Amino acid sequence: MRYSGEGVAAVAAVEEETAEEALELITVEYEPLPVLLDPLEAMARDDVRIHENVPYNLMYEGNQEFGDPDGALARSAYVLEKEFKTSYVNHAFLEPHAALAAFSPNGELTLYASTQIPHYLHRTLSLVLQMPMHKIRVSVPTVGGGFGGKGEVSSAELCAALLARKTGRPVKVTYERSEVFAQHKGRHPCLIKMKIGVDKDGLIQAVDFDNILDGGAYAGWGIVVLFYTAAMIHLPYKVPNARFRGRRVFTNKPTTGAMRGLGGVQPRFAMESMLDELAGLAGISPYEIRMRNAVESGYTTKSNVYVPHSEFKKCLQTAVEKSGYLEKHGKLPFGRGIGLAGGYYISGTAYTLYMSYKPHSSAMIRVDTEAGVTLYCGATDIGQGSDTVMAQMAAEALGVKYEDVHVVSGDTTLAPFDLGSFASRVTYGTGQAIKMAAAEINKKLFAIAAAELGVRAEHLTAKDYRIFSRFEPKKALDWHQAVEKYIDAQGPLVGVGHYTPPRTGGKFQGGKIGQSPTFGFSAQVTEVEVDLETGRVKVLKVTEAGDCGQAINPMSVEGQVEGSILMGMGQALYEEIKVAPDGKILNPNLHDYKIPTAMELPAIDSTIVESYDPTAPFGAKESGEGPIQPVIPAIANAVADAIGVRFTDLPITPEKVLRALKEKQRG
Amino acid sequence: MRYSGEGVAAVAAVEEETAEEALELITVEYEPLPVLLDPLEAMARDDVRIHENVPYNLMYEGNQEFGDPDGALARSAYVLEKEFKTSYVNHAFLEPHAALAAFSPNGELTLYASTQIPHYLHRTLSLVLQMPMHKIRVSVPTVGGGFGGKGEVSSAELCAALLARKTGRPVKVTYERSEVFAQHKGRHPCLIKMKIGVDKDGLIQAVDFDNILDGGAYAGWGIVVLFYTAAMIHLPYKVPNARFRGRRVFTNKPTTGAMRGLGGVQPRFAMESMLDELAGLAGISPYEIRMRNAVESGYTTKSNVYVPHSEFKKCLQTAVEKSGYLEKHGKLPFGRGIGLAGGYYISGTAYTLYMSYKPHSSAMIRVDTEAGVTLYCGATDIGQGSDTVMAQMAAEALGVKYEDVHVVSGDTTLAPFDLGSFASRVTYGTGQAIKMAAAEINKKLFAIAAAELGVRAEHLTAKDYRIFSRFEPKKALDWHQAVEKYIDAQGPLVGVGHYTPPRTGGKFQGGKIGQSPTFGFSAQVTEVEVDLETGRVKVLKVTEAGDCGQAINPMSVEGQVEGSILMGMGQALYEEIKVAPDGKILNPNLHDYKIPTAMELPAIDSTIVESYDPTAPFGAKESGEGPIQPVIPAIANAVADAIGVRFTDLPITPEKVLRALKEKQRG
Repeated sequence: MRYSGEGVAAVAAVEEETAEEALELITVEYEPLPVLLDPLEAMARDDVRIHENVPYNLMYEGNQEFGDPDGALARSAYVLEKEFKTSYVNHAFLEPHAALAAFSPNGELTLYASTQIPHYLHRTLSLVLQMPMHKIRVSVPTVGGGFGGKGEVSSAELCAALLARKTGRPVKVTYERSEVFAQHKGRHPCLIKMKIGVDKDGLIQAVDFDNILDGGAYAGWGIVVLFYTAAMIHLPYKVPNARFRGRRVFTNKPTTGAMRGLGGVQPRFAMESMLDELAGLAGISPYEIRMRNAVESGYTTKSNVYVPHSEFKKCLQTAVEKSGYLEKHGKLPFGRGIGLAGGYYISGTAYTLYMSYKPHSSAMIRVDTEAGVTLYCGATDIGQGSDTVMAQMAAEALGVKYEDVHVVSGDTTLAPFDLGSFASRVTYGTGQAIKMAAAEINKKLFAIAAAELGVRAEHLTAKDYRIFSRFEPKKALDWHQAVEKYIDAQGPLVGVGHYTPPRTGGKFQGGKIGQSPTFGFSAQVTEVEVDLETGRVKVLKVTEAGDCGQAINPMSVEGQVEGSILMGMGQALYEEIKVAPDGKILNPNLHDYKIPTAMELPAIDSTIVESYDPTAPFGAKESGEGPIQPVIPAIANAVADAIGVRFTDLPITPEKVLRALKEKQRG
Repeated sequence: MRYSGEGVAAVAAVEEETAEEALELITVEYEPLPVLLDPLEAMARDDVRIHENVPYNLMYEGNQEFGDPDGALARSAYVLEKEFKTSYVNHAFLEPHAALAAFSPNGELTLYASTQIPHYLHRTLSLVLQMPMHKIRVSVPTVGGGFGGKGEVSSAELCAALLARKTGRPVKVTYERSEVFAQHKGRHPCLIKMKIGVDKDGLIQAVDFDNILDGGAYAGWGIVVLFYTAAMIHLPYKVPNARFRGRRVFTNKPTTGAMRGLGGVQPRFAMESMLDELAGLAGISPYEIRMRNAVESGYTTKSNVYVPHSEFKKCLQTAVEKSGYLEKHGKLPFGRGIGLAGGYYISGTAYTLYMSYKPHSSAMIRVDTEAGVTLYCGATDIGQGSDTVMAQMAAEALGVKYEDVHVVSGDTTLAPFDLGSFASRVTYGTGQAIKMAAAEINKKLFAIAAAELGVRAEHLTAKDYRIFSRFEPKKALDWHQAVEKYIDAQGPLVGVGHYTPPRTGGKFQGGKIGQSPTFGFSAQVTEVEVDLETGRVKVLKVTEAGDCGQAINPMSVEGQVEGSILMGMGQALYEEIKVAPDGKILNPNLHDYKIPTAMELPAIDSTIVESYDPTAPFGAKESGEGPIQPVIPAIANAVADAIGVRFTDLPITPEKVLRALKEKQRG
């Protein structure tokens, strides 16, 4: 066992009580081993290896250098170097991991799982069970939240499948909350050293970034997170020179992994905190330093990442104007403060987790005379509402009502391939596939309508169940009639589409690195009140402005913004998994692990800025992970504005605030 | 109420007990009305109308005349006229009607139903609920038998949907056995008058057929059954002149409808019984008279129905040879007898039940790199194994293993349109659609393989997961590789297909009436022993030979034959719904309504004769309803051979046998 709470046995029984009794009958003898909880200590102790083959518990070290960071720092007018420490937080999704496995009489396994990644789960099941993938079906029912924590295969899923095979009976496994914490895969605690140099005008010259990531006991998505923290310093500001050193270290704790805004949240906390201080050094406002450095559409990073579209400046302007930031910053009474921060995130990734050349997203649309439109796509609605958005996009492209579209998603047998719901990839990627599939349907229907109406098919468009000429809108055919004519003569009316993001050297980006096909941006202004007696930080209001391209479903976008703000607030102020010296988690439940509730909800004023990404389906980019990026630094900047203390160690608890206030008084 | 047991109210509750209690709290006051149970009496009593607008309770009268039956009868060497009476029997499927209705938050209804006809149910729900069809999904889970009884919409389905809408909760309705009998839709009792004339060689000159069908209280499929009894006299023997008069009459009993071999079983009993007697008059054997009159491939009936393919003579030969019929008939000791009969049935129908021009069957195949082959088709597996047969046909056409094909069937949202599982239409009709869909997949894969292998695509074929040249079989490409290449470059690999049977004036049949695209044939020789003390008829052995074209799944065909024989035996010897003078069913349960069990199972020797229908997919025709046609007359003919008594009134109970034996002794 490499951490306290690691699974060693699984028991299946007809009732839970019997299973519990059986578990109690299993005696496991544990020989206590040294416990390494701190990554710095773990790197120093080669005598205690958590994995025998990993010296100094250093799972991975990655280094990158772009341009001449040392020279640029030396030439900078102002250089700031600081250390930051981020905390060990869990996703705290409401529905715990759950899986139900059943073998059919012909030996085929169906696994119903609360997962973000039916495809990767499908693949892992095949490897673990040594069964061909086509003998396994993964189907995702309604999911009560994932946030990255259901973006890796869970032991619940594998145990359910293995026990079902062993028993020949369906087996369901649902985690208790403590097991969710043990499975974890939450945010990597990071020890960050960051050095930033700016010229006299506040223009960034270089970023030198050293990041030690506490990986917990296993690898998981660790390397991905490590390199994402590296990538995340190149945007949303122009960074002409950069160095990155990243080390992911094993410790005797539940494994860290992917969590909303993966890789971005920790360096963003550091960088946006430092920008405020650098602005002070350069004698300009925090807003001004951001506007001067902010990237615009068509920018290419020094790391060769292309940004096709950005309304980041508009986000900053909007948040600042709507909040009155400039009027308030530095001018509020002691204990009240206002902070600004920016952020961005990817809209999908360029590569699969294993070598593969297939499309990352695909979609199939079938139109029936009577049953209407069925949209089959492998993307998975994990509570973010992607089924609705996909229905909307199909409906818009077809000219029908979105409520009339049946969505069949998250099922490896029923729907065509999709990589899954992570990295904010669904709207942009699956959206492209849906548009293409709808175009095939339209091509078939427009050919019929063109003949009926005596117009050219390429002049036709469809809206509100009518197919009509753009130039003579009165020349119209009822959509259902066209469908009926097609099916009567030619049978099932089906269209397919697919999407692969541009890769390195791809045409779309002219040889740029294909980190993500596009990016969403966000800016937030946060007002806080610090209770000078208790040290408690209260978030009063968050003014957010986001560039998610054209919002397909504004209510969903707002939901993502509000959820991101609450989740970021949790990490900023409250949440931290506490581990005892023997490695036991002290607060593996939602009583002792405090997440913000409706009671802590600040006033939120969110704006979807006018935006349309021409590379995107219906102009839409990500909105689920970008908005979490500015939350923590905006709060930290607001706290600094309120009490003149800059916290670099999360969470900003009342204890830390009181201690700082006392030190300040003493100082 | 038009019959005892007719539904007047439906109650939903959380538990069954509460529902029962609520039902007891409903007081219904019934005013007793005259009860008409006999169709002859019903036709005589215009003063008692079961439906106000139907004079003389005559629901429908149909008349047909082909050629000159009167002249032909007058010129016949031998003319026989007889009356027959068939009984009131139920399908007795094991699983009662069941339905589960649930509305989603967006107002869409999903109805899970044990039905043969998801499409017609879909349509009826739309009419009854006044909801558009695309807001309703009908999904058919594993079904425990239908035999025609689930070929009409059930009140269980409508009540579940209406109560779910009313309560806002999911509602499940499962019938008790007595409710199955009340819903009924079983076999029409018929009063048959049949006159057949043959020439001196036993060649049929004319059939004059008068049929009064007891319809019970409602219409249902009644007219269809009426005209099917009319059609059924034109085959499997050549009938150059024919007259039909059919009357379907309302009575105060549960409604009759479709039951396995619909419309064929009753006239077959009459005609095959009479052929034995006519053979005697003509001085030839019952075998000879059948062989002389039997139709062959390419025959067109006087009613203008085209028979593209028939191996009926081979069926007669095989059954007679394998059973030793010629050696035994007329030569067994008193009390032992052997009987021969022939039969046939349609493989689908030409028309939908409402005006429509869309394909009757359609199929969609999607091939995935990893998830394998998914076959979507609306056809419904009702226990007959159509999912397996469809998987086999897709696999054969694609060159993959049938166990690897995922079948998605019986679902109006997930699968493309299909009329349903009735009239033995699935293998032939849906099979054509599947073949076409597979051909589209093959076309796409062969294009890739042709380029890879440097051969012409039209020379390629696929088998055992290899695509290879028919002329140079060593030039082969792994099927999975071809799929991967296709999907990597072009996205989802999908093929669609559809099938519409030829209609009147259609090209395929050169203007012939499109009753069915083709027909299956069957011959049976049955040996019985009559217990002279108890009157009990024991079926000792059935030697069956069937022409179902090429059997796709011989085990399924055998199962259909064996099931047909048992079901026919039930109607011949045991089964009869008994109705008291007040209209109450006396035996609405499987204790008192006796169906044959394993105890009554005779030895069955069934042969699938060598056959390949060139119009059919993989040469396959029906096998589920043809084999029931000869069962009853073969038993009746065997009983006549055993004791010299010809029964014309079903079932042939011990009482009737004993009475006949006594009369014979007296006579």
